[in-house]
Amino acid sequence: MEVEQVLHMNGGDGKTSYANHSLLQRAVISTVKPIVDATIEELCSTLFPECLKIADLGCSSGPNTLLVVSDIIANIQNTFRKLNLPPPSLQAFLNDLPRNDFNTVFRSLPGFYNKLDEEHENKSGPCFIAAMPGSFYGRLFPDNSLHFVHSSYALMWISEVPKGLVTKGGEGLNKGNIYIAKTSSPAVFNEYFEQFKRDFTVFLRSRAQELVPGGSMVLTTMGSINSKDPLCIWEFVGLKLHDMVLDGLIEEEKLDTFNLPYYAPTTDEVKEVIEAEGSFTLQNLEVFRNDWDSYIKQANCGFDKNARAAVLSTDIRAVGEPILASQFGEEAMDDLFRRFEEDVLDHMEKEKCQFINLVISLTKKR
Amino acid sequence: MEVEQVLHMNGGDGKTSYANHSLLQRAVISTVKPIVDATIEELCSTLFPECLKIADLGCSSGPNTLLVVSDIIANIQNTFRKLNLPPPSLQAFLNDLPRNDFNTVFRSLPGFYNKLDEEHENKSGPCFIAAMPGSFYGRLFPDNSLHFVHSSYALMWISEVPKGLVTKGGEGLNKGNIYIAKTSSPAVFNEYFEQFKRDFTVFLRSRAQELVPGGSMVLTTMGSINSKDPLCIWEFVGLKLHDMVLDGLIEEEKLDTFNLPYYAPTTDEVKEVIEAEGSFTLQNLEVFRNDWDSYIKQANCGFDKNARAAVLSTDIRAVGEPILASQFGEEAMDDLFRRFEEDVLDHMEKEKCQFINLVISLTKKR
Repeated sequence: MEVEQVLHMNGGDGKTSYANHSLLQRAVISTVKPIVDATIEELCSTLFPECLKIADLGCSSGPNTLLVVSDIIANIQNTFRKLNLPPPSLQAFLNDLPRNDFNTVFRSLPGFYNKLDEEHENKSGPCFIAAMPGSFYGRLFPDNSLHFVHSSYALMWISEVPKGLVTKGGEGLNKGNIYIAKTSSPAVFNEYFEQFKRDFTVFLRSRAQELVPGGSMVLTTMGSINSKDPLCIWEFVGLKLHDMVLDGLIEEEKLDTFNLPYYAPTTDEVKEVIEAEGSFTLQNLEVFRNDWDSYIKQANCGFDKNARAAVLSTDIRAVGEPILASQFGEEAMDDLFRRFEEDVLDHMEKEKCQFINLVISLTKKR
Repeated sequence: MEVEQVLHMNGGDGKTSYANHSLLQRAVISTVKPIVDATIEELCSTLFPECLKIADLGCSSGPNTLLVVSDIIANIQNTFRKLNLPPPSLQAFLNDLPRNDFNTVFRSLPGFYNKLDEEHENKSGPCFIAAMPGSFYGRLFPDNSLHFVHSSYALMWISEVPKGLVTKGGEGLNKGNIYIAKTSSPAVFNEYFEQFKRDFTVFLRSRAQELVPGGSMVLTTMGSINSKDPLCIWEFVGLKLHDMVLDGLIEEEKLDTFNLPYYAPTTDEVKEVIEAEGSFTLQNLEVFRNDWDSYIKQANCGFDKNARAAVLSTDIRAVGEPILASQFGEEAMDDLFRRFEEDVLDHMEKEKCQFINLVISLTKKR
């Protein structure tokens, strides 16, 4: 499996599109906003850039894609009003893998620019939104060309499934699961952690070359409290796939040899890699949690249990469908997410099911 | 008609896609290559950029999109080998209107990067290919952020249909035609020329802000020898639409009120605008011509008249279909281009039918 070929959110704007199912991601961006705001204000009032150059890594496609840019523009305008200086121009690079649906993002740009002009009465500096397709596990930008890097809910997708999870003879090490689960062996934990270390190191090294000295990053990713705490939504999806194996709908071998290119590190693991890589000062590392369905409750206060399960199911489908369908077939997806929807809230009542989010705030050493 | 909404080449890679029908544009890029080469060599050995930043305006989607970038990389490598210096990195911005099919371009990038690595044995500097969707009749990039701007077969598409071509009462000034034709009145010529002057001035002013001092542009566009010489392929498409009006297949009013946002200037007109705008030194202005079907003869030496007409028809369709279909309906397109195919080479035998191309080479004054 080539991760670059199969990892992308559901494109377009249809029923199961990521564009229409990214409320969780929106809630997370909004929680992290004060940290981004403080970082941008600090950057502007120490570096005074003529043009603030930023990148959003793993931007995806949908209403959230331009949300961060739009928040940052408002922030720049406020900051420079306080400083009594004209606002800088902004060049924002939206990054995602080459199979992301950028066309849909681009089609929304003329409307976005019009709205900016109206909201800010032309008082913000000019804003230039470009796209940079490619993997962030490698170089994306020229040396010293960025002031700020943002990434939300993207870094948990690692560059490849750890190779050791399937032996050369084709035997799966993580049988019956698609990610670290309660039944996974220590070897599985280790394979995933080593891959995360390699990937996050490359990520940090690449960004260190691309950011100006003093430049900053705010990275939000899925985390875990400790590596022995496998309550991850993908474990639950794995259980449903396992049920389908028992029902003879999916070949056992297909499940046994499939693993997600995904890792939710602990705060200690994150710190360990940042210190070992050495280019960045860790400013802040926060953990916040939310129940799997709390963002749905928040957005739709009248929704009953069934309605929330339906939303959650489609939201997870919008994220996971392309990669899951590449292994189990498009035709298995309806059944899989029907099963997910049927059981997910019962599961939550039995186990403590939370998203654990890490916000990592870093500054490139001068 | 919002030009930004309807002007784009046929997307995807199907039978009538621009990607499969852009041999003419490829032939033109190849003719202009020595001029681009000389410009890049001059730029590199006077500005010695650490990262050469270039933009290709009106990049479209297909095999030509990355051709210029690929030529420039080879050129940089040669130039710096001669200078005995390590090559700079390259940041290339592909620009087109937001409805261009960028997804298809992005999907070809991993293969493109792999090929680069193989061809240059990792001896070229790193190459970062970004996209900047938006109209080049306005700002696209931050101040002083580019070294080189390239544009091929894009500038003849003006920002809007000249407003005066249809009176407030809804009467068409250029009845029966879709572009300047032999039967067009001086008022039609004038409306088009004034729109071109406004647009090209905005284009030059925008690029002057975006280019570093000493930065260069090579612009290839369709031209005419003088404004009284209306042998343009769109006049011929207009004749076929007129036949369809006579056959009752298209409403007369639809044709009378439709005009292409297109202008092929003369060399004198180009010079006039460049001098009046004042930011650039005109280094070179060349004209070269080719028969409508000469690029087809070149590429397919065995093709007879009928086969050439079929190719030419689909090639013109790949360029014109979205904008023509927005006025005359998708369902009229098969008939229109069948008529075009039937008559086009006969027409060429009666009249001298040539593409007239202008290559404009400019340097931003220091």
